[in-house]
Amino acid sequence: MSRFIKKRSKKVGLPPGTLVHIGEKKTDKVRITIIDYDEANFEEKEIKTVEECFPFKNKPTVTWINIDGIHDIKIIEKIGKHFDLHPLILEDIVNTGQRPKIEDFGDYIFVVLKMLYYNEKEDEIQAEQVSLILGSNFVISFQEREGDVFNPIRERIRSGKGRIRKMGADYLAYALIDTIVDSYFIILEKLGEKIESIEEELVTNPTPETLQAIHHLKREMIFLRKSVWPLREVVNRLERGESTLIHESTGIYLRDVYDHTIQVIDAIETSRDMLSGMLDIYLSSVSNRMNQIMKVLTIIATIFMPLTFIAGIYGMNFEFMPELAWPWGYPLVLLVMVVIGISMLIYFRRKKWL
Amino acid sequence: MSRFIKKRSKKVGLPPGTLVHIGEKKTDKVRITIIDYDEANFEEKEIKTVEECFPFKNKPTVTWINIDGIHDIKIIEKIGKHFDLHPLILEDIVNTGQRPKIEDFGDYIFVVLKMLYYNEKEDEIQAEQVSLILGSNFVISFQEREGDVFNPIRERIRSGKGRIRKMGADYLAYALIDTIVDSYFIILEKLGEKIESIEEELVTNPTPETLQAIHHLKREMIFLRKSVWPLREVVNRLERGESTLIHESTGIYLRDVYDHTIQVIDAIETSRDMLSGMLDIYLSSVSNRMNQIMKVLTIIATIFMPLTFIAGIYGMNFEFMPELAWPWGYPLVLLVMVVIGISMLIYFRRKKWL
Amino acid sequence: MSRFIKKRSKKVGLPPGTLVHIGEKKTDKVRITIIDYDEANFEEKEIKTVEECFPFKNKPTVTWINIDGIHDIKIIEKIGKHFDLHPLILEDIVNTGQRPKIEDFGDYIFVVLKMLYYNEKEDEIQAEQVSLILGSNFVISFQEREGDVFNPIRERIRSGKGRIRKMGADYLAYALIDTIVDSYFIILEKLGEKIESIEEELVTNPTPETLQAIHHLKREMIFLRKSVWPLREVVNRLERGESTLIHESTGIYLRDVYDHTIQVIDAIETSRDMLSGMLDIYLSSVSNRMNQIMKVLTIIATIFMPLTFIAGIYGMNFEFMPELAWPWGYPLVLLVMVVIGISMLIYFRRKKWL
Amino acid sequence: MSRFIKKRSKKVGLPPGTLVHIGEKKTDKVRITIIDYDEANFEEKEIKTVEECFPFKNKPTVTWINIDGIHDIKIIEKIGKHFDLHPLILEDIVNTGQRPKIEDFGDYIFVVLKMLYYNEKEDEIQAEQVSLILGSNFVISFQEREGDVFNPIRERIRSGKGRIRKMGADYLAYALIDTIVDSYFIILEKLGEKIESIEEELVTNPTPETLQAIHHLKREMIFLRKSVWPLREVVNRLERGESTLIHESTGIYLRDVYDHTIQVIDAIETSRDMLSGMLDIYLSSVSNRMNQIMKVLTIIATIFMPLTFIAGIYGMNFEFMPELAWPWGYPLVLLVMVVIGISMLIYFRRKKWL
Amino acid sequence: MSRFIKKRSKKVGLPPGTLVHIGEKKTDKVRITIIDYDEANFEEKEIKTVEECFPFKNKPTVTWINIDGIHDIKIIEKIGKHFDLHPLILEDIVNTGQRPKIEDFGDYIFVVLKMLYYNEKEDEIQAEQVSLILGSNFVISFQEREGDVFNPIRERIRSGKGRIRKMGADYLAYALIDTIVDSYFIILEKLGEKIESIEEELVTNPTPETLQAIHHLKREMIFLRKSVWPLREVVNRLERGESTLIHESTGIYLRDVYDHTIQVIDAIETSRDMLSGMLDIYLSSVSNRMNQIMKVLTIIATIFMPLTFIAGIYGMNFEFMPELAWPWGYPLVLLVMVVIGISMLIYFRRKKWL
Repeated sequence: MSRFIKKRSKKVGLPPGTLVHIGEKKTDKVRITIIDYDEANFEEKEIKTVEECFPFKNKPTVTWINIDGIHDIKIIEKIGKHFDLHPLILEDIVNTGQRPKIEDFGDYIFVVLKMLYYNEKEDEIQAEQVSLILGSNFVISFQEREGDVFNPIRERIRSGKGRIRKMGADYLAYALIDTIVDSYFIILEKLGEKIESIEEELVTNPTPETLQAIHHLKREMIFLRKSVWPLREVVNRLERGESTLIHESTGIYLRDVYDHTIQVIDAIETSRDMLSGMLDIYLSSVSNRMNQIMKVLTIIATIFMPLTFIAGIYGMNFEFMPELAWPWGYPLVLLVMVVIGISMLIYFRRKKWL
Repeated sequence: MSRFIKKRSKKVGLPPGTLVHIGEKKTDKVRITIIDYDEANFEEKEIKTVEECFPFKNKPTVTWINIDGIHDIKIIEKIGKHFDLHPLILEDIVNTGQRPKIEDFGDYIFVVLKMLYYNEKEDEIQAEQVSLILGSNFVISFQEREGDVFNPIRERIRSGKGRIRKMGADYLAYALIDTIVDSYFIILEKLGEKIESIEEELVTNPTPETLQAIHHLKREMIFLRKSVWPLREVVNRLERGESTLIHESTGIYLRDVYDHTIQVIDAIETSRDMLSGMLDIYLSSVSNRMNQIMKVLTIIATIFMPLTFIAGIYGMNFEFMPELAWPWGYPLVLLVMVVIGISMLIYFRRKKWL
Repeated sequence: MSRFIKKRSKKVGLPPGTLVHIGEKKTDKVRITIIDYDEANFEEKEIKTVEECFPFKNKPTVTWINIDGIHDIKIIEKIGKHFDLHPLILEDIVNTGQRPKIEDFGDYIFVVLKMLYYNEKEDEIQAEQVSLILGSNFVISFQEREGDVFNPIRERIRSGKGRIRKMGADYLAYALIDTIVDSYFIILEKLGEKIESIEEELVTNPTPETLQAIHHLKREMIFLRKSVWPLREVVNRLERGESTLIHESTGIYLRDVYDHTIQVIDAIETSRDMLSGMLDIYLSSVSNRMNQIMKVLTIIATIFMPLTFIAGIYGMNFEFMPELAWPWGYPLVLLVMVVIGISMLIYFRRKKWL
Repeated sequence: MSRFIKKRSKKVGLPPGTLVHIGEKKTDKVRITIIDYDEANFEEKEIKTVEECFPFKNKPTVTWINIDGIHDIKIIEKIGKHFDLHPLILEDIVNTGQRPKIEDFGDYIFVVLKMLYYNEKEDEIQAEQVSLILGSNFVISFQEREGDVFNPIRERIRSGKGRIRKMGADYLAYALIDTIVDSYFIILEKLGEKIESIEEELVTNPTPETLQAIHHLKREMIFLRKSVWPLREVVNRLERGESTLIHESTGIYLRDVYDHTIQVIDAIETSRDMLSGMLDIYLSSVSNRMNQIMKVLTIIATIFMPLTFIAGIYGMNFEFMPELAWPWGYPLVLLVMVVIGISMLIYFRRKKWL
Repeated sequence: MSRFIKKRSKKVGLPPGTLVHIGEKKTDKVRITIIDYDEANFEEKEIKTVEECFPFKNKPTVTWINIDGIHDIKIIEKIGKHFDLHPLILEDIVNTGQRPKIEDFGDYIFVVLKMLYYNEKEDEIQAEQVSLILGSNFVISFQEREGDVFNPIRERIRSGKGRIRKMGADYLAYALIDTIVDSYFIILEKLGEKIESIEEELVTNPTPETLQAIHHLKREMIFLRKSVWPLREVVNRLERGESTLIHESTGIYLRDVYDHTIQVIDAIETSRDMLSGMLDIYLSSVSNRMNQIMKVLTIIATIFMPLTFIAGIYGMNFEFMPELAWPWGYPLVLLVMVVIGISMLIYFRRKKWL
C-alpha cells in the first residue's frame, strides 16, 4: 500500500509551506548538475554548493539545473528563495505523494511528473517524483535519486544533434516530459509480455499462481493508471498554450506528447479489459476442472456401487440361497457384473461424460 | 445505517428555518471560546454567556469564535440574530445530516464540512459536522462536541509562527479547512494498513472473517467517499475566487487544499479497486480449496471402491469358487489390490490431481 | 411491474390533449378544497361544484385549490378552461405515468411530483402523482386520492406560524414541494431499518429468504430512484430563478430543497452500494456452507472407506488366511482400525478441515 | 444477429448516393397513397404511377404522401428528383440499417425512425424503418411494407377531429412521430407482462428455460434500446425549434413527445435493472438447489458408512471373535446401529441440514 | 499483445522527428503510384523514383499519390521535404502504433486511419495503418503494404462514374475514408456470423471451446473498438468544416461517413452486450450440467448405500441370527431391497431429481 498512499501524517497541523520531506530517502548526497547552452556555447558541470547555480538565473542562455535528492530541506529552501518560488511549491517538491499536476505562476510554470521504472527484483513498477520549474530561460528539475532517463537528452545537447540547441527553455522542458512519457512505453511492453505469457499459461496449465499473476498485473495497471491519467490533463494544459513561457513552435511538440499520453492510456485500458477477460477464463477453467473431477467420481460410484451390492448379496449367510450351490453360480455372477460394468461405460460415453 | 442516514423524520412538516437538533447529543455543556488577533495583538478566552462574543463582530481584528455543542438551540439563535445569519443556515448548523456544502450570502460564506475520526473501539470512521461562517473579519465555527484537530492552528496563532497572524479571516478559514482535509490522510493511512494486513491474510490463511473484514473496509470506504466527494466541489468553489471575502493571496492556498482533496479521492478510488480485487482473490481461493477437497474425495473413492469390490467378491459364499481353495489365492489377491492401488496413485499424479 | 410501467396503451392513436385517465381510480368522489389567505385574512372551505373556485383566479390574495381525485375528466377540463391551461398539461395531470418534470408556460409553471408512501401491508413503496400549477397568486394541486402529507402546511397557514402568510404563491408551492421531499426521508429511514435488520440476519442466520429480502429492497430502491432522480432537475430549474413567478427571496428556500434532494439521492446510492455488498456476503456465506458440507462428506469417506475395506479383506472366504486363525488377529485388526481412524482425524485437524 | 447488423457489404466501394436496397424485401408491390387537406377540404387517393403525386408539391394545402415499399429504386429516384432531395438521403431511405436520425437541409427536414412491432410468432420485436421528409407544406413517409400504426391519424384527418386539419405539415410530422413513440408503450407493456410472468416462475419453479427467457428478454431490451436512445436526440433537435419549418405552436407538442421518449428510455433502463436482479435470483436459487442435493448426499454417507462398517466387522471370518458366539450379540449390534443412526439424524436436524 | 501495443522502445531517447519505422515490414519494395485527374483529363502511372511525383505538387489538377510501404525512411523524408511536411508528421507516418487522429496544419490536413482486414487463417482482425495528407489539390496516402480496399475508387476515377472527377481533393480524401469505414461493415458481418454460430452451439452443445470462442470474439471486439472509437472524433472534426481545405459541398458527405462510424460503434457495443450475455448463458449451462452430475451421484448413493448395508447385516457371522435359518429369509430380504429401491426412485421423481 505504501506505493499507493504516502505517509502524510507527520505533516498534519504544520503551517502551509513548511518543508517536510515525505517519502523514503533514496539517495545520500544531494547532487546538483548544471548544463548551460545556446546555439553556439555549451557548458556542463557538477557543483558543490547550491549557491554556484544562482548566477545562471539571469544569463540569456538556456540553463538546466538538475537536483538529485530532495531530502535536504535547506538546499531546496535556498533555491526557492533565489528563484522566487512560492513556499507551497517547495512543499510539493519535497512531498513525494503528489499527483502529476501543473501550476502556472506567470513567471514560471511548475510541473510534477512521475518517472516510472520496472523493478525486476520486486517485480513491480516503482515511481520517482520529478518536479520541473520552467522559467523564461531556465529549467530546474528535482529528482528523488540519481539515475534517470534523461541521458539521451544530455547527449543531444552536448552533441548539438536535433534542434534542441536552437530552441529555448520550453523546448528543453518538453524534451524532459517527452522522455518520461516515452519511458512509459517500455513499462507497457514489459507488462504486455507478461500478459502474453500468462495467456499461454491459461491455455496450457492454469494454476492458482496464474490467478495471483493476473491480480498482480491488475494492481500494476491500477498503479500505472494513477500516474498517467492526471498526466493527460497536465500535457493538455501545457499544449493549450495559455502561458507566454511556451512558444508557439513548441506547441506542436507538446501535442505530440499529448498523443503519446493518450496512446499510453489507451493501452492501459485495453490491458485492463484483457486482464478481466483472462480472469473470466481462469475461473471457468477452474470450474471446468472441478466438473471433470465430479464426473470421475460419479462414474466410479455408478459402476462400483451396484457391483459391490451384488457381491454383498452373495456374501449373506442365509441357509437357503439356492444360487450358492449351483456350480455355474460364481462364473455367472462374475459375468453379470462385467456386463453391468461395460454397459454403464457405454451409457456414459453416450452421455459424453467420458 | 444511522451513520449513513440521519433521522430527519422529526422535522417533517415544520416550517423552514425551525431549529431542531438532529443527531446524537455529543456533549453536555456548550463551550464557547474566542481567539482574537492581528499581527500585534492576541487574546484568547472562554466565555460564559453567548452575548460576550457580540462586540467582536465589528472589531477590525480577526476573531475566531468556536462553539462546541450545537444542541442548545437558543445559543445558536442568538448568534444567528446578532450576526444576521439566514434562518436556513441556522437550521443546517443544528441538523448534522448535511452533506459538505458551501453557500455564499455576499456578506458571509457558509461552509459545512465533516471532521472524521477513526474510532478504534468501534473499528469505524466517525464523523462530526463542522460548520464555518466566514465574515469579513471573523470566523465562527460550530462543532458537535469538544475536542478537535484544530490545536496546531491555535498554537500557530498563539506563537505567531507562520503567516497566520499577518493574514485575514479568509486565511483562518483556509487553515481550518486544510487541517480537516489533512486529517483525512491519517484515516487513509489507517485504512491502508488494514488493507495491507488483510492482503497478507489472504495469501497465508483466508477465512470467512477475512471476507467480513474486506466488506467492512468497503463500507468504511463508502462512508469516507460520501464525505469527501462533495468536499471537492466545496473547495473548488472557494478557490475559484468569486467572493470578495477571499483575497487573491489566499487563492493559491485553497488550490493546495483542492489538490489534497483530489489526492484523498484518488486514494479512496484506488483502495476501492484494490478491495474489489481482494474480494475476487478471496472467492477464488475459497473455490480452490473446495476443489482440493473434491480431489481428495475422488481419489479415496477411486482407490477404495474397486478394492472393496474385490474383497466383496471373495466374501461371496458360492460353493464352487476354485480361487478360495488355492493356497496362493489370498496373497495373490492382496498383491493385485496393492498393484491396483499404486497404479491409480501414479495415474493421479500424472493427471496432477495429487 | 405495474408500478414501473403504466398501461398507456389505451391512449395510442388518440389526438394529443385528449383526456384519458391512466392509472387506478383511487378515490370515489372528487373533493375540492380552497384555502385563501393573505397576511391579514384567512378563509378555508370545501366546495361542491368546481365553478365555485373560479372567482379566486383574480383575487389578489394567495389561493390554494386542492383537488383530490383526477378520474373525473370533466372537472379537470373545466378548471383547465377557466385557468387557461394548455390541453397537454391537462393530459399530463390525468395520466399518472409521468416522470417528475417542470414546464414553464410564462403565465404559470406546471410541476409534476411523486408523493411516496410506504405501504406496510404490501411491504412496498407506493406513489401518488401530485401535479402543481403555480400562477402569480394561486396554486392548484391535483392528487390521486384523499389523504396527503400537507396537513402541517395547512396548519401553518391557519395559525399564521412561520412566514407562509407573509409570502406569495411561490412560497406556498415551495412549501408543498419541500414537504413532499421531506417525506422521502421517512421512507429512507424505513428502508434503512430494513437494511439494518437484514444485515444482522446475514451474520447470524442467512436463509434464501434473506436473499429475497435483499432483492426486494433493491427493487424498492430502483423505484425510489426513478421518482427522485428527475426531481433533482425539477428543483434545480425552479431554483435557477428564470421565471418571474418565483421571487428572489424564495430562491434560497428552493436551494434548500435542492440540497435535501441531493441528500436523498446520496442516501439511495449509498444504500444501493450496501445492498450490493450484502448480496456478495450472502452468496459467499452460502458457498461457505456448501464447503462445510463437502468437508464433512470428505472426512466420512476418508475415514470409513479404508476401514470398511480392511473389514472386507477379513471377510473373504479364502481357505488359507493364516491371520484368521491367530487368537490375537481380531483385536489386532480392531486396533489397527482405531489407529488409522485417529491418525486421519489428526491429519484433518492439521489441515484445518475440522 | 441480422436484426442487429444489416448486411451492408454489397454497398462497399460504390460511389456515395448509389441506391441499393439493403434489408429484406417485405412487400411485393409499391403502394403510394396521398392524403391532401386543409381546414376546409380533404382528398385521399391511391395512385398508380409516382408522377401523379408531383403536382402536390406546390399546392398550398398540406399533403401527406405515403410510400409502402422501398425496394423499387426507380420510384425513390423519381421522387428524389422531383422533390429536390439530396442523393445521400435517398440512399439512407433504401438502406434499412440506419439509426434514428435527423438532418436539416433548410428546405426540408429528413427524419429516420424505427416503427416497432411485437411479432408474437417469433416472440421478438421487429423493426420497420420509416423515413419522413418534412417540407413546408408536405410530408413524405417511406415504409418498408404495408400496414402501419398510422390509421388513427388518417381517421383524425378524415373526420376533422382534433386540431390536425387546422395545423400545418409540421403538426402532421409531429403526429406521425408521436404515434410511433406511443406504439413503443405497447411493446413495453408486453415485455413488462413477460417479466412479471418470469418473476412468478422464478419464485415457484425456476428451470433452465427460465434462464433462457430472461436472456431472451435482455436481448429484446438491447434491441429496443438501440432504437429508442438515438430517437431522444432526434426529437430533442426537432423540439429545439432551430428550423423555420417547425412553427412555435408545434414546439410544445414535440416537447410532449420528448417526455414520452424519456419515459420509454426510463422504463427500458428500469427493466434492464430488474432483469439483472432476476438473473442473480435465478443463479442463487440454482446454487441453493445444488446445496440441497449435497446435503442429502452427505446425510446418506454419514449415516450408512459407519453402519456398513460395523456390519463389515462382524462379517470378518476370524476364528476368535467372542461376540459372534454371544446369544445377544446380533440384537445388540442391531440396537447399536439404530442408536447411531438416530443420534446422527438428531445431530443433523440441530445443524439445520434437514 | 503485439497487435495491441507496438514496440516503441527503440524510439526512447531519440530527438523528436527522428524517423524510425515501428511495426513489421510488410512489403519488400516501396511502390508509388500516381493518379492525376480533373473533369476532362486522367493520367495514371507507377513511378520508379520518388522525385517523379514532385511536379504534381503545383499542378491545378487533383493528384493522388499512393505509397505502398513505409519502411524506406529516405523516400518518406524526400516527400516530406518537398511537400513541406512537419517532421513529427513523418515520424507518425512510419510509426504504425498510432491511434486514428487528425491534425490541421493550415496548408494541409494530416489524417491517420486504420484499414482493417479479417485474416481467415489467423482468425483475427489485422490492421494496416493508412496516413493521408490532404493538400489543396493533392492527396498523399501512405500504406504499410500493397493491396487495399481502394480499387473501386480507382475504377470510379478511371471511368468518370459518379461525381468524383468533378470534385476536388477533399472529395477524394472523403472517398478514401468512406471506403475504409465501409470495409468495417464487412468485418462486422463476419463477426456477426461467428456470434450467430456460437449462439447455436450454446443451445445445442456448449463445450470449453465455445467459451474460448466467446473470449476470442470479445478480444476482436476490443481490437475493433480501439480502431473505431477515435475515428469518430476524426470524422467529426473533419465534418465540422473548420478547415478551408474542405469545401462546404463535401461536408454533407462527411456527415454521412460520420453516421456510418456511429453505426459501426453501435454495432460493436451491441455485440459486446450480446457476448456478455452469452458468457452468462455458458457459465450457467456449465453449472447446470454439474448439477445434473451431482443428482446422478446422489441418486446412486441414496439407493445403493442402504441396500448394501442390508446385505452387510446378513453377511455378519453371529451364531444366533434366526433370520438366516428361515427358508423364506433370502427371498424376503431380496423383496425388501427391491421395495426400498423402487420407493426411493418414486420419491426422487416426485422431487424432480430425475
